[in-house]
Amino acid sequence: MAGNTFGEVFKITTFGESHGAAVGVIVDGVTPGVELTEAYIQAQMDRRKPGQSSVTTPRKEYDIISIKSGMFEGKTTGTPLFIMLENKDMRPEAYSDIQNAFRPGHADFTYLQKYGIRDHRGSGRASGRETAGRVAAGAVARKLLEHRGVQVVAYTKELGGIRCETYNEEIIEQNAVRACDPDAAVRMIERVEQLAAAGDSCGGIVECRIRGVKAGLGEPVFDKLDAELAKAMLSIGAVKGIEFGAGFAAAGMLGSEHNDEMNASGFLSNNAGGILGGISTGNEIVFRIVVKPTSSISVPQQTMNVRGEEQQIITEGRHDPSICPRIIPVVEAMACLVLEDHYKRQAAMLG
Amino acid sequence: MAGNTFGEVFKITTFGESHGAAVGVIVDGVTPGVELTEAYIQAQMDRRKPGQSSVTTPRKEYDIISIKSGMFEGKTTGTPLFIMLENKDMRPEAYSDIQNAFRPGHADFTYLQKYGIRDHRGSGRASGRETAGRVAAGAVARKLLEHRGVQVVAYTKELGGIRCETYNEEIIEQNAVRACDPDAAVRMIERVEQLAAAGDSCGGIVECRIRGVKAGLGEPVFDKLDAELAKAMLSIGAVKGIEFGAGFAAAGMLGSEHNDEMNASGFLSNNAGGILGGISTGNEIVFRIVVKPTSSISVPQQTMNVRGEEQQIITEGRHDPSICPRIIPVVEAMACLVLEDHYKRQAAMLG
Amino acid sequence: MAGNTFGEVFKITTFGESHGAAVGVIVDGVTPGVELTEAYIQAQMDRRKPGQSSVTTPRKEYDIISIKSGMFEGKTTGTPLFIMLENKDMRPEAYSDIQNAFRPGHADFTYLQKYGIRDHRGSGRASGRETAGRVAAGAVARKLLEHRGVQVVAYTKELGGIRCETYNEEIIEQNAVRACDPDAAVRMIERVEQLAAAGDSCGGIVECRIRGVKAGLGEPVFDKLDAELAKAMLSIGAVKGIEFGAGFAAAGMLGSEHNDEMNASGFLSNNAGGILGGISTGNEIVFRIVVKPTSSISVPQQTMNVRGEEQQIITEGRHDPSICPRIIPVVEAMACLVLEDHYKRQAAMLG
Amino acid sequence: MAGNTFGEVFKITTFGESHGAAVGVIVDGVTPGVELTEAYIQAQMDRRKPGQSSVTTPRKEYDIISIKSGMFEGKTTGTPLFIMLENKDMRPEAYSDIQNAFRPGHADFTYLQKYGIRDHRGSGRASGRETAGRVAAGAVARKLLEHRGVQVVAYTKELGGIRCETYNEEIIEQNAVRACDPDAAVRMIERVEQLAAAGDSCGGIVECRIRGVKAGLGEPVFDKLDAELAKAMLSIGAVKGIEFGAGFAAAGMLGSEHNDEMNASGFLSNNAGGILGGISTGNEIVFRIVVKPTSSISVPQQTMNVRGEEQQIITEGRHDPSICPRIIPVVEAMACLVLEDHYKRQAAMLG
Repeated sequence: MAGNTFGEVFKITTFGESHGAAVGVIVDGVTPGVELTEAYIQAQMDRRKPGQSSVTTPRKEYDIISIKSGMFEGKTTGTPLFIMLENKDMRPEAYSDIQNAFRPGHADFTYLQKYGIRDHRGSGRASGRETAGRVAAGAVARKLLEHRGVQVVAYTKELGGIRCETYNEEIIEQNAVRACDPDAAVRMIERVEQLAAAGDSCGGIVECRIRGVKAGLGEPVFDKLDAELAKAMLSIGAVKGIEFGAGFAAAGMLGSEHNDEMNASGFLSNNAGGILGGISTGNEIVFRIVVKPTSSISVPQQTMNVRGEEQQIITEGRHDPSICPRIIPVVEAMACLVLEDHYKRQAAMLG
Repeated sequence: MAGNTFGEVFKITTFGESHGAAVGVIVDGVTPGVELTEAYIQAQMDRRKPGQSSVTTPRKEYDIISIKSGMFEGKTTGTPLFIMLENKDMRPEAYSDIQNAFRPGHADFTYLQKYGIRDHRGSGRASGRETAGRVAAGAVARKLLEHRGVQVVAYTKELGGIRCETYNEEIIEQNAVRACDPDAAVRMIERVEQLAAAGDSCGGIVECRIRGVKAGLGEPVFDKLDAELAKAMLSIGAVKGIEFGAGFAAAGMLGSEHNDEMNASGFLSNNAGGILGGISTGNEIVFRIVVKPTSSISVPQQTMNVRGEEQQIITEGRHDPSICPRIIPVVEAMACLVLEDHYKRQAAMLG
Repeated sequence: MAGNTFGEVFKITTFGESHGAAVGVIVDGVTPGVELTEAYIQAQMDRRKPGQSSVTTPRKEYDIISIKSGMFEGKTTGTPLFIMLENKDMRPEAYSDIQNAFRPGHADFTYLQKYGIRDHRGSGRASGRETAGRVAAGAVARKLLEHRGVQVVAYTKELGGIRCETYNEEIIEQNAVRACDPDAAVRMIERVEQLAAAGDSCGGIVECRIRGVKAGLGEPVFDKLDAELAKAMLSIGAVKGIEFGAGFAAAGMLGSEHNDEMNASGFLSNNAGGILGGISTGNEIVFRIVVKPTSSISVPQQTMNVRGEEQQIITEGRHDPSICPRIIPVVEAMACLVLEDHYKRQAAMLG
Repeated sequence: MAGNTFGEVFKITTFGESHGAAVGVIVDGVTPGVELTEAYIQAQMDRRKPGQSSVTTPRKEYDIISIKSGMFEGKTTGTPLFIMLENKDMRPEAYSDIQNAFRPGHADFTYLQKYGIRDHRGSGRASGRETAGRVAAGAVARKLLEHRGVQVVAYTKELGGIRCETYNEEIIEQNAVRACDPDAAVRMIERVEQLAAAGDSCGGIVECRIRGVKAGLGEPVFDKLDAELAKAMLSIGAVKGIEFGAGFAAAGMLGSEHNDEMNASGFLSNNAGGILGGISTGNEIVFRIVVKPTSSISVPQQTMNVRGEEQQIITEGRHDPSICPRIIPVVEAMACLVLEDHYKRQAAMLG
């Protein structure tokens, strides 16, 4: 109801604000008897943490996860996994000068309207910090999906107006912007550093490919696999759109072009992006999301404060000039959560 | 779990296949004491029904709705509204020649993979017929939203490569393609008739504007208002993508361009599409969806049948050359369902 | 939310008032490919229908069910089963003289308080008519449980102060009160006829035994198997209590008496009623419910009307002098729904 | 699905095993802007903790709660409250000698059957330790209910065969067994100490009274207020039955006796226990639960171990000879959770 829970069988519930004492997640519905380590989860957390390079915020978060329940002798027990991260770098005062103004592009105004409360200590639940629990839980899902032969990989497709022209999966984790084209990566980094110096930020496009999902996954009608992935992705703060397969280009296509024909070996194209009628085709699942430019910038902007007075604002502080590089592990985590949940839902139907 | 239910408080559950005896919906969580008539719902059904013009299928569906429960003396009682439509034009034999082949772009293959069953009588739950229950339920939500001062309007923005350049809300329901630009409408109709004659189909873009939603609606984190709208829209058969506000264009924007600045009167732009941090800003909510070309075409295509043999297929029958005109009442219905549900969720939180 | 849905995987949603046009149920999450007939469901409906004997109301309900979706060639498809019953004996006028008074023991007063609406046409959703959808859906669950080797049988244990002393399962469906002791049955029928003649009614106890449930079913903590059964049973109109195994007698027992010891062959007693820690032990599951006396009686009673005026009331009409005989198929249906749902939940966890 | 979540709007999710690192709860759906302190919650925890008197286990648990999120400047924010308790007295070795045997009356056998895992460190999620999160969350609900004028009080009605004959609410928290009759309390304590000395345990009955609930609360059909309370109570480990109002005594009553008549001032009796048709009448809500004798006893019992070998077992350790005194705050907590949730559900319906 209040929207802090995701999934039906493999279900997570998160808590925690950017500047509170801790953030974390309860992961319920975990298969019992599966080997799992804190190190495995930590590896995903490390991909998400700030301060990885010149294009991410130098702000240090203490993303050291700890599993507090649901494990016995190195294996999951089937009872709730509780994973927590303490917040050690709480510095609410860093935000105090803007505590009364609504930062453009942020949720300050809408949170006040919804809750009637002004918590000026950063962005509360609207902060990127909230995604830590998602990534931790996603790592658990990823471990279960490994046993199913499913792989999820996301990467920057476009950043600051620069688009990848080639696809080299090997290099994704080797460059600071997690792009799939090494040449584009170099230009993207240059562009982002430039913008950072100017106190500005830029948007981009992240693409995600999912391989190894068997045909027949997804619930038709309201819980179509693409509908659930769309919800999962749009639930990530800065995401403003999603498209599957041919996506928005389908608007200009004919049926005879867009339909994926088949022969005895399977589909001859993948305009559908691996999903037909809300159910996986067995083909690679492909979708793209658009990531808006980071809202926190040092360029002066016009705004209003809680007293209704107009003022200028500079959202100082330590922020990523582009969200793409660090959103990628979050995108993968959410995709893993959707998939593992749907595998279990399929088992429930047949069970 | 099986995905035939949508919503948390204002909750609908649909049933029915394209060629079964009936389709319908149970609408639960309706406010008691609200005046409602079958005629009000029927008016929405009529916008969705086939055979409205040269650009929609001449197939007749008997979309005459009947309310079987939940009403007393012209008002809702707060108990489940049950709305049913009998299927009177069941002609499974019309599909018999293709009963063993997987129609490209359809869910035939994926349904067989999921359920292990081949129901050759049309598309079953993957049929557009399934949306009848959505539109009926959406009309109930629309009635409740009227009392809140909320208006939802969708229209064709682009069709067959032709894009609306002007916005005239008055003419939307006056032209066969439900476009917002009268000149574009003429050319779209011409284009669609051309394609229909050639046995082909085309895609398009539908835009939706929602006015009158107060600031503060939506649940942060997983059930963001845009995340829920995205799920709702992607759950409609032919929809392959969605974008809010500036949408995919945000990929090429700077933070200083994309952020919506404020003055004492409110927001100075609406790149966010009326939603920040998953919560409504009070501005118009704007999103666009891409609608793939109708999969059923008379152009011969290559496919496989259930025995794994390759064959050619022509998906004869009576089909819309473009889904856009008739998807519009479905888009509006789903938007109404999301909004009414979130109004009630907000009331629950504060209650 | 509004409470017309039951179950998580095998999930039902009911609609319909006692004097509306129809009642029915959508059954979602049904295993695909299972043989099912209307006759199989009808057989359960017939056990529930009025007019079966001298101890049930002579009122005729037209409990002829019709499956409108979710079937193909005699088998379930995995899509929602919709089962409907038309109400053909609507006689709201029969209730008109009491339309303004709150009938003692009925939900008239509380419904008005909740919904602000006075629907005087019988009891609306609080009517026993509402259970028709439960029994229809329960029959579907029962069919699935047959394949699992599970049997559910309920019977009258006590009625009008007369208690069964022997247990003979064969005779349960052979006597009008569905008692398990033939001698007690004779005396119960006599007692009930006596009370009916006097315009009064009596309470009783129904016992339910479930055999063939494997050990390990049930979700610990909040969704314990006994907790779910308790909710299911207390959701039936006239039920005011439930106890498992030794039940309330456990209050007077020692741990050394109540604990069920084990040897290599299993449990040596069944004070637990087949459930430990909320999970099935593999033993017979045994519970008892108390059924209050029918509220509708011809004995004059004191009450208030909607205008706050005191008055006497005689709840004339055609009513069962005891609810026990006809509640038994409802008890079994609800137990079947809980069990099938938990089998599928177990499959989901492991899946 | 996996059953670690309770409630629909006011929703809690718990985690933690008896001998893990921590236990706790996420409370979602909390009204924003409500004053709340850790001390308020701690007071409820202290009523539940072991070692309060001669009739409870001397085992020390460190029930010091800590709120980690969802608060700002002493008030709730509307975002998830996370409340944690570290386990500081983990002594798995204390249980090692029985690690392979199934303790009679415990969930050892059923957990192994369900999960395929033998976690011998105490009872895991089946431990009373699991209820700590419930009591913490229940305290939050209690705080919200205070603002609604609702009071929940539970007490020992019967213990070890001794029954309270008088009702004195003042003395409940003044005696070690939380009985409502001072004379009975003295004899109960004596009885329990006797049994403890003999290594045995006894059952009892706990009664709960809820005052101040307005008429009209509860969702008819499946989520009746009594059905939800029944589920809540049966979800507590040692509870084996529940009855409302006249309860099982209704089996021997006539309709003319059981029906609660009304006059202009309201109901003249309360056999219904404050709930009619699943909806509150405005009268006091009254129910009783039966609590089985503590399963852990020092009396030698026959059992089986994981290798299928028969053996004798003495469940040594530090255990309460009766669960009643310490279950009382858990009963109240669960009742508070059900009530607050239903208040919010009612607000959602009308909202």
